[in-house]
Amino acid sequence: MKREIERKYLVTGDGWREQAFKKVHFAQGYLNNAANPENKCSIRVRIEGDEANLNIKSMEIGISRDEYEYPIPVTHAQVMLEKFAIGPVIEKNRYWIEYEGFVWEVDEFLGENAGLVVAEVELEDEQTTPPLPDWVGREVTDQLRYYNVSLAQRPFSQWSEAEQQGEVS
Amino acid sequence: MKREIERKYLVTGDGWREQAFKKVHFAQGYLNNAANPENKCSIRVRIEGDEANLNIKSMEIGISRDEYEYPIPVTHAQVMLEKFAIGPVIEKNRYWIEYEGFVWEVDEFLGENAGLVVAEVELEDEQTTPPLPDWVGREVTDQLRYYNVSLAQRPFSQWSEAEQQGEVS
Repeated sequence: MKREIERKYLVTGDGWREQAFKKVHFAQGYLNNAANPENKCSIRVRIEGDEANLNIKSMEIGISRDEYEYPIPVTHAQVMLEKFAIGPVIEKNRYWIEYEGFVWEVDEFLGENAGLVVAEVELEDEQTTPPLPDWVGREVTDQLRYYNVSLAQRPFSQWSEAEQQGEVS
Repeated sequence: MKREIERKYLVTGDGWREQAFKKVHFAQGYLNNAANPENKCSIRVRIEGDEANLNIKSMEIGISRDEYEYPIPVTHAQVMLEKFAIGPVIEKNRYWIEYEGFVWEVDEFLGENAGLVVAEVELEDEQTTPPLPDWVGREVTDQLRYYNVSLAQRPFSQWSEAEQQGEVS
């Protein structure tokens, strides 16, 4: 079990692209419906380059969440995404960028979420505020609509213009 | 991936007890709600003696079903059953019995399902009819209420007398 502490930010401009030291394509979907309040965890299947995993995470929103993750064969994940996923399969490219001792993950969404780019940084504790690269904008850690579970329900293409520009909480 | 072919029967009397060569205690729960038609698979966490696993199975009912199973640490399973399970955790003792070259699994349910005893046998193909021990009663392979996913929703103690006696489909 891992207690995950991370902050999530909007990304502004394209300055991050040339700083990335790694890029991997992700396809992921959920085996349960996060919008249904009876569910106490999210259950995600992800294909990450040539690997796959199953991720079970408590449904709390915020900086710190209970999380379990297990590697599974890619062939299993492909069948699960095709047959068992609820809602659309989310596709994105993830880029890794190092900045002043912190590693940032920038997710450039594709398909129905094209146009959305968010950055996450993992932290040692909830008090840490990381140094921010100049392409990092507003923090959205506590905003539900930017979470993958939410994007599988209501993709970026369906957001209002104000929501797309990060102007509303 | 494994395509599971099995038949399920009611058990009559106690004759099977002395034939068992192995007995293990099971505690299991579901991370999603089988009664919700939006779900396309069941997701089960099981502690099986001193081991645990995560099982993902297509929601079809019948002899043959798609199934994936992964071992996980018992400590993870304990937290998941406590925090993430929907509906009651099912407890049962499973007994293994060999009869004329076939291995039978007899599940003696406990707690809210006490009184229910069912036997399952795994088969090579859907056409095989196994030789039946004399403690095996009526076949219930196609009867939804005997499945663990159903028992987690509506336990044996809530069945009508006719249902408990296996008199209705």
